[in-house]
Amino acid sequence: MFKGGRVISILTDFGVRDAYVGIMKGVIFSICPTARIIDISHEVSRHSILQGAFMLAQTAPYFPEGSIHLVVVDPGVGTDRKRIILQGKRCLYVGPDNGVLSLAAKRESVIQAVEIKNEERMLPHPSETFEGRDVFAPAAAYLARGVDITDFGPNISDFESLSLAEPSQSDNCLLGEVIYIDGFGNVVTNIPKEMLQDICLGASFKVRVQEVSKIAPFCEAYDYVPVGSPLLVVGSSGFLEIAVNRGSAERLFKAKTGDRVAVTV
Amino acid sequence: MFKGGRVISILTDFGVRDAYVGIMKGVIFSICPTARIIDISHEVSRHSILQGAFMLAQTAPYFPEGSIHLVVVDPGVGTDRKRIILQGKRCLYVGPDNGVLSLAAKRESVIQAVEIKNEERMLPHPSETFEGRDVFAPAAAYLARGVDITDFGPNISDFESLSLAEPSQSDNCLLGEVIYIDGFGNVVTNIPKEMLQDICLGASFKVRVQEVSKIAPFCEAYDYVPVGSPLLVVGSSGFLEIAVNRGSAERLFKAKTGDRVAVTV
Amino acid sequence: MFKGGRVISILTDFGVRDAYVGIMKGVIFSICPTARIIDISHEVSRHSILQGAFMLAQTAPYFPEGSIHLVVVDPGVGTDRKRIILQGKRCLYVGPDNGVLSLAAKRESVIQAVEIKNEERMLPHPSETFEGRDVFAPAAAYLARGVDITDFGPNISDFESLSLAEPSQSDNCLLGEVIYIDGFGNVVTNIPKEMLQDICLGASFKVRVQEVSKIAPFCEAYDYVPVGSPLLVVGSSGFLEIAVNRGSAERLFKAKTGDRVAVTV
Repeated sequence: MFKGGRVISILTDFGVRDAYVGIMKGVIFSICPTARIIDISHEVSRHSILQGAFMLAQTAPYFPEGSIHLVVVDPGVGTDRKRIILQGKRCLYVGPDNGVLSLAAKRESVIQAVEIKNEERMLPHPSETFEGRDVFAPAAAYLARGVDITDFGPNISDFESLSLAEPSQSDNCLLGEVIYIDGFGNVVTNIPKEMLQDICLGASFKVRVQEVSKIAPFCEAYDYVPVGSPLLVVGSSGFLEIAVNRGSAERLFKAKTGDRVAVTV
Repeated sequence: MFKGGRVISILTDFGVRDAYVGIMKGVIFSICPTARIIDISHEVSRHSILQGAFMLAQTAPYFPEGSIHLVVVDPGVGTDRKRIILQGKRCLYVGPDNGVLSLAAKRESVIQAVEIKNEERMLPHPSETFEGRDVFAPAAAYLARGVDITDFGPNISDFESLSLAEPSQSDNCLLGEVIYIDGFGNVVTNIPKEMLQDICLGASFKVRVQEVSKIAPFCEAYDYVPVGSPLLVVGSSGFLEIAVNRGSAERLFKAKTGDRVAVTV
Repeated sequence: MFKGGRVISILTDFGVRDAYVGIMKGVIFSICPTARIIDISHEVSRHSILQGAFMLAQTAPYFPEGSIHLVVVDPGVGTDRKRIILQGKRCLYVGPDNGVLSLAAKRESVIQAVEIKNEERMLPHPSETFEGRDVFAPAAAYLARGVDITDFGPNISDFESLSLAEPSQSDNCLLGEVIYIDGFGNVVTNIPKEMLQDICLGASFKVRVQEVSKIAPFCEAYDYVPVGSPLLVVGSSGFLEIAVNRGSAERLFKAKTGDRVAVTV
């Protein structure tokens, strides 16, 4: 039975106004007609490598084994930063060597890493300003066709790695920082749910984000507090989230990525 | 001959900036590799159940028989509102039991309704804040694989229903309200084309939206009036629409969803 | 081996907030279940035929041979402008006869052109305000199913054509205009890379866009100048581009489409 071709996900900071993402998909289908393409997002904040890395790490575990994740958040396009492929235990990762692939790939552990150098696996005369089209999309498509990772270029022993800031705990206080703010205004922290095991549902906390403090209860879901009220919740990516029921915690706390967070009993 | 797998449409208020929709698609392909996924929109106004319901009702009739419509506009996520599947005459509907599925499903008439309770048809350890990923996307994917609706949980005898406000007619006046405003600024009313059968093309009307009145002719298409001028037209969903040629009736009439509309000879 | 069905690209000015694009995809899959659909963009500036034409011309060469490009940028919908199909050497083009298809189709040269008139290839009772759904999407889907172009209506001997303004060269100065500004704020001119062959990498130029002048070097890629500095670069579509490293040339030069550009040694 036909099972569908390999899945290629695409994550970029290109936006959806221009034709750039559509062009990359045209390239992919030209090389691998059976690929199944999924957009993760094209609205990563421009040139924000850490945000792209977090979004990919949050997404990749939900994709089928063997998926190919194509990421182009690449302020250094055309310079001498490497173009790489990481072979993880479950999936393949294609993109610039600036750390954007690293959170997701290392979470499943990286088996092999190569630099993309073989020009036969690129479009002819690759442009220096749109390697997404000329280098990365072809690489993802050839991988989807079953070309071996060793065919793209030499093994590399190392690659750029990012890591999230480490949260800490002292007496009656959890300390962390804001790692992501979603479109609903939910403020995602780097405090993992494992640090929340002793906290009782319904208990109230003083929540401080940088300079702004509020009292908020720890709940299972948004709708357990009145509309407009803040709450703490374990978010869908497994981290402590600061939210406002049908409102925006981003606005209430004037939160920005990188802000310090303190949660006190 | 291969005919393509089942079609799954997705309609949410998640926006396209975050990875949430991409994650749901990864889940779908993990369970049903042959599904064909179509985005209806992810820009339903946040938590606007009525708007989502209208958009789905406008869309579903154009999809192939057997399509599965997955809708997540769900301000009550994680509370005790039910998660349901409605089997219509043509299509299947998956989402929260808050009315968002009801306009579309009832239009084709509902044959069976079940509550989603079987945890084997969910991701393990479902999150309380992202049931789109953990409950609804798996349900749609298992349906696409051919799992029977009765496998997901018990039959239910009732579900939340919305209905559009009823328009009325008196002498020389049609009275209704604004049910949708599209991205072009076209103002869609709840006055169906069946109430317009006696109106002559080219005739002029006094059109009032809440407090703002203008004179506008009834035309077949936008470009029959000068650029910037208002007109009345039968919109593509079969309702009377107030429009401005290459402009925005929303701005001209300061229109909002729910505003009262009066059209007078 | 299954090779995937025909590729249909879609380019519109509909935006992604409304359900219109999703409805068109439902229509396509209802007629041709094996089509593979790719979005080019739905954010063409409203009613901007020239912008849509440029985006299509930039995209089509990267799509597989035999692709069907469905374009709905159509301020004259419902009036007597024709609905057409152009058979190019590589691909098929479906849309209104207002020039939006012409740049791309003529670049590969047009073999045959027909007017869409056969109502059996439309949805029943086509609406005058949404021919994308009722006329163009069905046409693209029937083409994808292999229906011959002659089945849709009579041959036409001519169609609306756009052309980009011609750049010129005098002594030490290149003169052109702004034809596109992308979401990064990169300003694309109509000066082709063939006119840049004598220019040395690293050389500096006076760049004027309408009333604003800056000095900028000619570089291979954005990151060769300091963050925030302007540069000239051969953009990915083969034209001279004015850019700012990790910034916006659109803002720096207050550029708009159609602005005059002068590059002087």
